[in-house]
Amino acid sequence: MPVLVMKFGGTSVANIDRIRRAAKRVGLEVAKGYDVIVIVSAMSGKTNELVGWVNEISPLHDAREYDAVVSAGENVTAGLMALTLQEMDIPARSWQGWQVPLKTNSAHSAARIEEIPTDNINGRFAQGMRVAVVAGFQGISPEGRITTLGRGGSDTTAVAFAAAFDAERCDIYTDVDGVYTTDPRITSKARKLEKIAFEEMLELASLGAKVLQTRSVELAMRYNVKLRVLSSFEEPSDEAGTLVCAEEEIMESQVVSGIAYSRDEAKMTLISVADRPGIAAAIFGPLSEAGVNVDMIIQNIAEEGRTDMTFSCPTDQVIRAEKALREAKERGDINYHDLIADTNVAKISAVGIGMRSQSGVAAKMFKTLSDEGINIKVIATSEIKISVLIDRKYMELAVQALHDAFELDKAA
Amino acid sequence: MPVLVMKFGGTSVANIDRIRRAAKRVGLEVAKGYDVIVIVSAMSGKTNELVGWVNEISPLHDAREYDAVVSAGENVTAGLMALTLQEMDIPARSWQGWQVPLKTNSAHSAARIEEIPTDNINGRFAQGMRVAVVAGFQGISPEGRITTLGRGGSDTTAVAFAAAFDAERCDIYTDVDGVYTTDPRITSKARKLEKIAFEEMLELASLGAKVLQTRSVELAMRYNVKLRVLSSFEEPSDEAGTLVCAEEEIMESQVVSGIAYSRDEAKMTLISVADRPGIAAAIFGPLSEAGVNVDMIIQNIAEEGRTDMTFSCPTDQVIRAEKALREAKERGDINYHDLIADTNVAKISAVGIGMRSQSGVAAKMFKTLSDEGINIKVIATSEIKISVLIDRKYMELAVQALHDAFELDKAA
Repeated sequence: MPVLVMKFGGTSVANIDRIRRAAKRVGLEVAKGYDVIVIVSAMSGKTNELVGWVNEISPLHDAREYDAVVSAGENVTAGLMALTLQEMDIPARSWQGWQVPLKTNSAHSAARIEEIPTDNINGRFAQGMRVAVVAGFQGISPEGRITTLGRGGSDTTAVAFAAAFDAERCDIYTDVDGVYTTDPRITSKARKLEKIAFEEMLELASLGAKVLQTRSVELAMRYNVKLRVLSSFEEPSDEAGTLVCAEEEIMESQVVSGIAYSRDEAKMTLISVADRPGIAAAIFGPLSEAGVNVDMIIQNIAEEGRTDMTFSCPTDQVIRAEKALREAKERGDINYHDLIADTNVAKISAVGIGMRSQSGVAAKMFKTLSDEGINIKVIATSEIKISVLIDRKYMELAVQALHDAFELDKAA
Repeated sequence: MPVLVMKFGGTSVANIDRIRRAAKRVGLEVAKGYDVIVIVSAMSGKTNELVGWVNEISPLHDAREYDAVVSAGENVTAGLMALTLQEMDIPARSWQGWQVPLKTNSAHSAARIEEIPTDNINGRFAQGMRVAVVAGFQGISPEGRITTLGRGGSDTTAVAFAAAFDAERCDIYTDVDGVYTTDPRITSKARKLEKIAFEEMLELASLGAKVLQTRSVELAMRYNVKLRVLSSFEEPSDEAGTLVCAEEEIMESQVVSGIAYSRDEAKMTLISVADRPGIAAAIFGPLSEAGVNVDMIIQNIAEEGRTDMTFSCPTDQVIRAEKALREAKERGDINYHDLIADTNVAKISAVGIGMRSQSGVAAKMFKTLSDEGINIKVIATSEIKISVLIDRKYMELAVQALHDAFELDKAA
């Protein structure tokens, strides 16, 4: 029988009533003839409670013990979901990560999946079991200890299972009903997308659209797993949610599919850096070693032989970045007059596969912002994305203006 | 290094502060030179929450899924305890049941321990680890599924580890400071016992003294594990608590060591049963098959060829017992006029190793109750115990009178 993977997030399994509701959706797919693999998160709030206890004991904790503690919530939900399905006369059983076993490397708290053997679960499907309920977010290391995949890791678990079992689709049930052209809280014109390409979703996810964990989208793209994002609070329907799929499956792409924003970006400027070959490496090497995720980079010629270097990084990495650069200066590796951090900025991005084949998107974006009197501080572009840093106070205005300019309220 | 097992119950690990307090006690023993195996329960209330969810979904649940769910609480505490010890610079790590692995049979929710391999943990002790924190109450079945040992199973886990690792002692930390001559809530004259024999503890435990799980005492007796019951809320001292040990280690036993009571016993009477050879088997066979735990049995000759048969069983098994007997009657296996259940009774027991060598204990007990005007409904005796069923309203009075009569307020 064809296999379907269904993943339920924390709000979708927050209490017994919601677990029952989720189980009913599973039952609908079983009735259609699917063998279903259900991936569950912890009941909402539970993982935070566990993380809170660990941090109360020790902020610098042993990641192996952290993983052993925080994986508990998913185990509970997996068992409760299996029981609920059994109560509906659907043959089901639960698996914890180590029982599958979902094998990972030993990078505790951010482990990578290495292998998901299918014999065990497929054997049970062959014997008449209809639903395998698997605790998300967790695996087992080569040393036999429990690992976790990082926050939001249940999405990744779901996609990995869909790939391993060659599932027809991977449905991610969450508390939003799909992927939108932009945040509906910023403009009521935001429209739910019927389909979105992996690459676009990846850009949107990495830009802070919290619908899917970035890694899960990467994984889906690599293994061509059809992902559907939908709400567990809406009536079931085949058209529900947003399908994240390969570009080829989207007949008519819009030039721009969505406008994303992020408040968590800071702009840092090194004033009057002595310019010489290798200076970029001398600046960004130490930042990389310090674990700073540099996003956009811009270099201005300031005067003869000197340059201003501007880059953006997450706000919470500013202190780390300053320290790394100060130390590089003290070592004599780089030389600059001043270092200015501006945390009062926002990043606005236009994302769309269509940009590849259509020119003028950047020009239209810049003109739109200019018409609104919004000054652009930094620009970065990729094949399917244009991002700009602007003053934070213009963030909502910029999103609304760009959403209008690219006519995102109208279906393709 | 000698091994010590320390078990902390739910109230002793109810929050992070209490876990720290427990960890400090572990630290004291480590400082004395012990390698310590810590067995932890779930934080108080957590297991009840999990059991509540399972019962909300299905009162008749799959015991395998029940076990997968309710074992989660101990896993959390084990990790938190290991982290707390590490924070105190004590080398520690946690083990879940399947990691040890603590091997059990497949009797889910009431599994029996079959083997505890010691190589793994002893290997770590040899490498310098000082504390192994083990999640209590749980194990793994031959099929690789999680099992639990039944409520209070962490006591059994602790004793089993003490036996497997040949521990010097097994300290059970709980919210009472030892074993008393009777319930201090019933008489302020109740006195804490310094020592009590395994057999006596076993009788008291099975009579409802909730200090230790019966199975853990049985196991301790079989493997001669020295058990100490003590409070985690008292100042540490070598004299704290009550030592449960072999009879030989108690110099001077009192005739009676304790008075126990139970409200959860019902009296059932089959009126005018046709008496014939094998009638007892015809009555108690079906009860046993129905899972009714018959405790006391008494048979009166009522009239020629007929008899009244009275027995006691736990109050919550009365309906099951009635059904089993009615069915046996319908099948024609037994014949009786009426079946009367009296749930308004209490069981009072006097327990003491000294009874073996001293006569007149029963007579003294009956006279004491008679002097108080308390009618005895059923009597049952064993080598070291005399139990009676009386009207429930006299329960407190009976306990107080017997405690006085046997002078239990005075040390031996």
